[in-house]
Amino acid sequence: MSQPILTRVACLARDAQDPLASLRERFDLPAGVIYLDGNSLGARPRAALARAQDVVAREWGQDLIKSWNTAGWFDLPKRLGERLAPLIGAGAGEVVVTDSTSLNLFKALAAAVRIQAQGEHTAARRVIVTERSNFPTDIYMAEGLTKWLERGYSVRLVDSVDELPAAIDADCAVVMLTHVNYRSGYQHDMAALTRHAHAQGALIVWDLAHSAGAVPVDLNGAEADFAVGCTYKYLNGGPGAPAFIWVPQRHQAQFQHPLSGWWGHAQPFAMAPGFASCDGIGRALCGTQPVVSLALVECGLEVFEATTMDAIRLKSLALTDLFIDLVESRCAGHPLVLVTPREHARRGSQVSFTHPHGYAVMQALIARGVIGDYREPEIMRFGFTPLYTSYADVWDAVEILKDILDRADYDVAAERGAVT
Amino acid sequence: MSQPILTRVACLARDAQDPLASLRERFDLPAGVIYLDGNSLGARPRAALARAQDVVAREWGQDLIKSWNTAGWFDLPKRLGERLAPLIGAGAGEVVVTDSTSLNLFKALAAAVRIQAQGEHTAARRVIVTERSNFPTDIYMAEGLTKWLERGYSVRLVDSVDELPAAIDADCAVVMLTHVNYRSGYQHDMAALTRHAHAQGALIVWDLAHSAGAVPVDLNGAEADFAVGCTYKYLNGGPGAPAFIWVPQRHQAQFQHPLSGWWGHAQPFAMAPGFASCDGIGRALCGTQPVVSLALVECGLEVFEATTMDAIRLKSLALTDLFIDLVESRCAGHPLVLVTPREHARRGSQVSFTHPHGYAVMQALIARGVIGDYREPEIMRFGFTPLYTSYADVWDAVEILKDILDRADYDVAAERGAVT
Repeated sequence: MSQPILTRVACLARDAQDPLASLRERFDLPAGVIYLDGNSLGARPRAALARAQDVVAREWGQDLIKSWNTAGWFDLPKRLGERLAPLIGAGAGEVVVTDSTSLNLFKALAAAVRIQAQGEHTAARRVIVTERSNFPTDIYMAEGLTKWLERGYSVRLVDSVDELPAAIDADCAVVMLTHVNYRSGYQHDMAALTRHAHAQGALIVWDLAHSAGAVPVDLNGAEADFAVGCTYKYLNGGPGAPAFIWVPQRHQAQFQHPLSGWWGHAQPFAMAPGFASCDGIGRALCGTQPVVSLALVECGLEVFEATTMDAIRLKSLALTDLFIDLVESRCAGHPLVLVTPREHARRGSQVSFTHPHGYAVMQALIARGVIGDYREPEIMRFGFTPLYTSYADVWDAVEILKDILDRADYDVAAERGAVT
Repeated sequence: MSQPILTRVACLARDAQDPLASLRERFDLPAGVIYLDGNSLGARPRAALARAQDVVAREWGQDLIKSWNTAGWFDLPKRLGERLAPLIGAGAGEVVVTDSTSLNLFKALAAAVRIQAQGEHTAARRVIVTERSNFPTDIYMAEGLTKWLERGYSVRLVDSVDELPAAIDADCAVVMLTHVNYRSGYQHDMAALTRHAHAQGALIVWDLAHSAGAVPVDLNGAEADFAVGCTYKYLNGGPGAPAFIWVPQRHQAQFQHPLSGWWGHAQPFAMAPGFASCDGIGRALCGTQPVVSLALVECGLEVFEATTMDAIRLKSLALTDLFIDLVESRCAGHPLVLVTPREHARRGSQVSFTHPHGYAVMQALIARGVIGDYREPEIMRFGFTPLYTSYADVWDAVEILKDILDRADYDVAAERGAVT
């Protein structure tokens, strides 16, 4: 762990030497705000406004229907997939940006289950293993799939990371895990769990919602089977922007799912009355995509091309280390408990602390311009985006937290609201 | 049928008396273009540019995560559904705007099949009946569902409208029809076919892709079961804008589908590890929606509030009658064959003609600023959007077509491209 930096001046000095500092200029952040919620909704790249205007005014308004070809609308899911691929250790022709994370997970799970059902030694396997603490929609989608498949399919919820290896047993068809937990910021060992799943005869699907653009990911290096994730958190693609799905070359010929829409057809414009799947990653596509939202994803991805995931990780760990150190030193004596792992290898790019009045404290922070968010039970989440968060931001956020706690300046009776 | 108007002056006089004429000002159409492709991609409402700027710059850029609540992002699918409902004869709380038409169709078909499977007298029914000439993705989605259900489910493709009633037999679980055919512009009798399907013990799912905003639709009046449709054609919601799904109150308690994501959960922010469906139309929701594209749908819907579907239909029929009359009189002698029904009740808001060199002629029209589109085999499609198409536009378009045909000014060797 790094040495604590215990003055604001030291933080400013760190910012002055930060090779990523200039990337903050690529984002439009409101004045007076320290934004520590990029793990929920990434900030807006400046380029996104001009891009939105261009897509709406010129591509749609002026060029109209022609833009499907001339502006490359039809190819956007693949073009964006190619730009996203290097951030997650995916190869060319292995990623598309399309639909929602929930839907992409359904496709991946359905394909994985089908592959297993056709395997000589895996046909009897009927269980999807995941964590009870996984992001709920992942569990819901697995439930939806297994209920409809009937024939004894079910979802097994595991209560702790320690119990996970044993739960991946001879009944397990597919393991479905979120790489970095949305609440705790715990990061799984992707390579080790993938190896273990394979050794047990299972396939593994990774949800990278809190990983893509946040931590280095090497899907092909880990020999993972499938992955999905969202673009509106650390990838800064815009509110609810379409999600992505990764299917490695080695699984593409077998990749089949029930959401077989015309964008996944071998010849979509032949308008044939029977479905014939295209080759390659296009198989993960279904229907027509929301072009304006999709186009803005590119503005988020462009920023990453000015740096590397290694540089981002280095700063992410420095920011989260600093935040933990400062909270524990400056706010000592207050009932804050660190939920996020101290071990670097097990930490994502967020830090969560519990506080008995976590919700109220978070509301007070937001009122003072420090935007994090709250998750039951008692968890205050702080996301750190190295592209636009400075060391001085971390210092200032902790000073405001300290002031709120020291003066008990929060309303414990405040009603609980909700943000995604 | 109306009397032919055989001079441009008469068309201009008609425009001068057109109660919808002023609505053209609500759209930004490029100069020098006669846009007859609103059945593929609707033109841009002027308001959409300012709305896009506001969503991107203020709601996303400035208000960030708070906008899920303060800008009503989370409620957008329902809010837009309420505004769309009157255009299709739907009631309050019966429509959401979400996902793609393909995906919504999958939900509706899955729910319909499940309701039938649980019915005392319908449990043995295993066939989804549709037309071979239906828009292909509808057939593909039905195929995808039936293949995954196994247990003998299949899709029955019917070759002609005349054969449809008999094909809806004692094996038929669900009828899936597109109300207005994308190629011919043929409009089914929704009320009669719905009655027939019900009399045979089947449920019926209507695809309104070429109906919503184009022709009056009365889903509740017809006692239809489910409907889906898109917002980027006659509703002018923007390229690939999210689609809609209608579930009438009477089916909502039974509405279940496998795409059970967190937006359809009774308490999405309780983050419970088990799926519990919400009540009402929210059941049709799955994952997080593309907010920027979704928000622009509202700009298209607003325009409809300045008029009525009856007024739109009156002008639509006048425009399509005029187009047919003029093509058949001014272009007489050329091998053009009308594909669209002359009978008003059977006609949508488009007119299709075949020509042996249909593709080449359409390319020549586009080069001269008359934008329609082409569909195999030999079909030139012309969509008429009463909100922004004038009688003089129709006259001018036909004169350009006549000139191209008279001078054979098209390149029969032109390579065939594709637009959606």
